[in-house]
Amino acid sequence: MGDRFEGAAEGRLRYVLNPRFILSCSDPLWEGVRELSLRRGWPVHTHALEQRDETLAVRELKGGRDEVQYFADQGLLATDLRLAHGVWITHEHLDRVRGGRFSVVHCPSSNLKLGSGVADLLAFHRAGVPVGIGCDGAACSNQLDNFAEVRLAALLQKVKHGPDAFSGLDALRLATSEGARALGLQDEVGTIEPGKHADLAVLASDRPELWAAPQAEPHDLVAFGASRAAVRHVLVGGRLEVEEGRLTRLDLAEIYRESERCLGELIRRSGVTF
Amino acid sequence: MGDRFEGAAEGRLRYVLNPRFILSCSDPLWEGVRELSLRRGWPVHTHALEQRDETLAVRELKGGRDEVQYFADQGLLATDLRLAHGVWITHEHLDRVRGGRFSVVHCPSSNLKLGSGVADLLAFHRAGVPVGIGCDGAACSNQLDNFAEVRLAALLQKVKHGPDAFSGLDALRLATSEGARALGLQDEVGTIEPGKHADLAVLASDRPELWAAPQAEPHDLVAFGASRAAVRHVLVGGRLEVEEGRLTRLDLAEIYRESERCLGELIRRSGVTF
Repeated sequence: MGDRFEGAAEGRLRYVLNPRFILSCSDPLWEGVRELSLRRGWPVHTHALEQRDETLAVRELKGGRDEVQYFADQGLLATDLRLAHGVWITHEHLDRVRGGRFSVVHCPSSNLKLGSGVADLLAFHRAGVPVGIGCDGAACSNQLDNFAEVRLAALLQKVKHGPDAFSGLDALRLATSEGARALGLQDEVGTIEPGKHADLAVLASDRPELWAAPQAEPHDLVAFGASRAAVRHVLVGGRLEVEEGRLTRLDLAEIYRESERCLGELIRRSGVTF
Repeated sequence: MGDRFEGAAEGRLRYVLNPRFILSCSDPLWEGVRELSLRRGWPVHTHALEQRDETLAVRELKGGRDEVQYFADQGLLATDLRLAHGVWITHEHLDRVRGGRFSVVHCPSSNLKLGSGVADLLAFHRAGVPVGIGCDGAACSNQLDNFAEVRLAALLQKVKHGPDAFSGLDALRLATSEGARALGLQDEVGTIEPGKHADLAVLASDRPELWAAPQAEPHDLVAFGASRAAVRHVLVGGRLEVEEGRLTRLDLAEIYRESERCLGELIRRSGVTF
């Protein structure tokens, strides 16, 4: 699959190794992931330090070692390692990963819905760890709306660190320049400038939630007011993929039909009855 | 104004006394509010126990008394008293208001944005205090989207009390039956049944964020998936006020124009320059 997808779709598709999390992957699997990552240059994306119970279970299973110790022992800190969640990262962890290619994907809705906690984005910033924004799976965050996640990320840092701790601009960076750094794509996307891909979302400024006095700080307006409902156009590589809120090349009804078919098939194969 | 608006618009408008909060209202003002509330039967809506600094300032100003002690001394606990926020309500406060007509309006986005904290809805439930959902002012919550507030309310209780602590149905009740109780309107609105007003919001179930397996719990789908973007129709008293997402009787462009005019006038009068 890596050979098939790496660099496909005019270079837009990349391959990433995605072991789910420590508890569901064997030691040899992690060794294989490290070896493949270093040989092919593929990043490693996994979920870690999400919940307290999970961290306790890892210590139990791995002879008292926590997630970062385990990754260090497996040589994973030498790879381009991206951690979804990172709610329970400590200062000792951050000292240990410093200097490596290490980033965090913050998934605030999911971290609340599963009762995991609130990740400390300011601690990541201080440690120089780039932070992107994510939605985790649909079952954990339903809306899969990155604008909603950006808003929630900013709100949660404010209640954690005080109302001036995290600005609208800080929040938008999670989804743009800093998010691109978290993925190692900062030379290709994340800011609007010559030589980068024209990946743009155009918001409908005539919606009530984006209406404000002309003096209002535009970053705050977008970070705290926008949701995907305000997205008017989306350009990817300069091509219009969403126009006036509608997909230009995909048929939403067809996606629903196909999803329903796949879901029915999956439930049938699983043997679960309702 | 009370005489003019109480019972207007075919009984849909009611008058509520709305002193902002303890720190900006004099003792005689609160006395007048109590007297008027008891004489006319008008409820009292105010903001209280929102922020720690505010609570400290109240103690400083009112001879060591906290908000609930002060309200008790002013006779306000004898009125139909609704508190926006209530983040810092204690068990002692709840014991004190028990048996009165006392309710709380929960404003989760605002409580995060101002760094106030997370109100404990389960403590209100245990004390039998009805809780409604609110957005506070636009500057504190931007979207003024009650669906977004419902979702956030549920998510925050889960991170506070564990993932099973607050269901989608619990969350929807804040905006329906329990919200109606908080306003003393439980005999008129809040549930769909004969004899109540036909106040209904119809959601567009064909939106991606509301798509799910047929086995999914519908309350969870709405509580965690919906936002006002999913609202298709709104009926108030059986009359269609929003149809296919558009206001039927008001002109949005005209509202913007009038808002802009009023805002300009307000800024001019305030003498603030940008």
